[in-house]
Amino acid sequence: MQTARTTPSRLAKRAHYDEATIHPILDEALFCTVSFAVDGQPMAIPTAFARQGDKLYIHGSVGSHFIRAIEHGAPVCITVMLADGLVLAKSAFHHSVNYRSVVIFANAEKVTNETERMNALALITDHLIPNRWDDLRPTTDSEMRKTTVLRFSLAEASAKVRTGGPNDDPEDENLPTWSGVIPLKTVRQTPIPAGTSLEIPLPDYLS
Amino acid sequence: MQTARTTPSRLAKRAHYDEATIHPILDEALFCTVSFAVDGQPMAIPTAFARQGDKLYIHGSVGSHFIRAIEHGAPVCITVMLADGLVLAKSAFHHSVNYRSVVIFANAEKVTNETERMNALALITDHLIPNRWDDLRPTTDSEMRKTTVLRFSLAEASAKVRTGGPNDDPEDENLPTWSGVIPLKTVRQTPIPAGTSLEIPLPDYLS
Repeated sequence: MQTARTTPSRLAKRAHYDEATIHPILDEALFCTVSFAVDGQPMAIPTAFARQGDKLYIHGSVGSHFIRAIEHGAPVCITVMLADGLVLAKSAFHHSVNYRSVVIFANAEKVTNETERMNALALITDHLIPNRWDDLRPTTDSEMRKTTVLRFSLAEASAKVRTGGPNDDPEDENLPTWSGVIPLKTVRQTPIPAGTSLEIPLPDYLS
Repeated sequence: MQTARTTPSRLAKRAHYDEATIHPILDEALFCTVSFAVDGQPMAIPTAFARQGDKLYIHGSVGSHFIRAIEHGAPVCITVMLADGLVLAKSAFHHSVNYRSVVIFANAEKVTNETERMNALALITDHLIPNRWDDLRPTTDSEMRKTTVLRFSLAEASAKVRTGGPNDDPEDENLPTWSGVIPLKTVRQTPIPAGTSLEIPLPDYLS
């Protein structure tokens, strides 16, 4: 949703407010950064998350200072960034980055319903490792008691996207300097079994 | 430096305060997230940066709301995260992430010395693309006037590092569920030339 604080001061043409742009970025990114303020002092924590519909979930230990600082509804700013490429122009000034980012302004809502809590943990697990949850033993009551789940609305989310090559000044276009894009990609490498899993075949969902 | 706010509430054994741990994380990460607060409202921006000695530099447009919000010394929290692997345990509860992160508490110092400003821009450019700066035409006075460079002290920086495999509960170790680590890596793919560079050989520093 476009509001005063989701409207960028620079390059507003790169801003998007539609779910069709925002949701796929959140679904592809593995981690977000949650920023909050305590007495004016900004703090930020990178963490795992998952999206379902227009809600975003994170989880943490019930004893975590971070979780306790925001669980009662403090305002947070959640950012996600996918770096797609380095953009090399013919001048330093026009060097740039191809990226897809999302910024969310929201207030944490502590999830108390046990079904929603369990569902959120499954979502977060499967967001990082698709199909993992159903392969795991049931979560115990003790584990659930040690875990806080927080929900955030995506109502005030916005995306910024840059794609394409460099935008050089016309007078620089004939310079003999190489310009273009170096694509960046995050890859999953060959899984390494733990000592307790040396005899267990790698499941299909990890191949 | 270990201070009250750089001491984590959870898993303090993962915390580090030495340059030998902190500097290589900052040098490997391509982007950081700068968090700040305006009237108690947290805001955060992912951006490029570079480190030299015990200083970190970022840059931005002189007209950017973000830069203008912090350039007079507002407190910021800068985070960097390298995700090294997904840690799959035999229970959902012990799933984890191998990561190297840095959190910096500092106040922006606006750089006014032209030599330091130019040096910082070279550092930021070469941090993303090593050896690029010397291949570029000189930056113009007009470009420099449009650019703000901010410096941050690393005095109050801390790192957190997790490595290794899953830490399962002893009673779970014989479960037939595959456990281990899926390494993650950010790779640079084959450079794609811009239309104005189709006839220009790719420089050695990009191969």
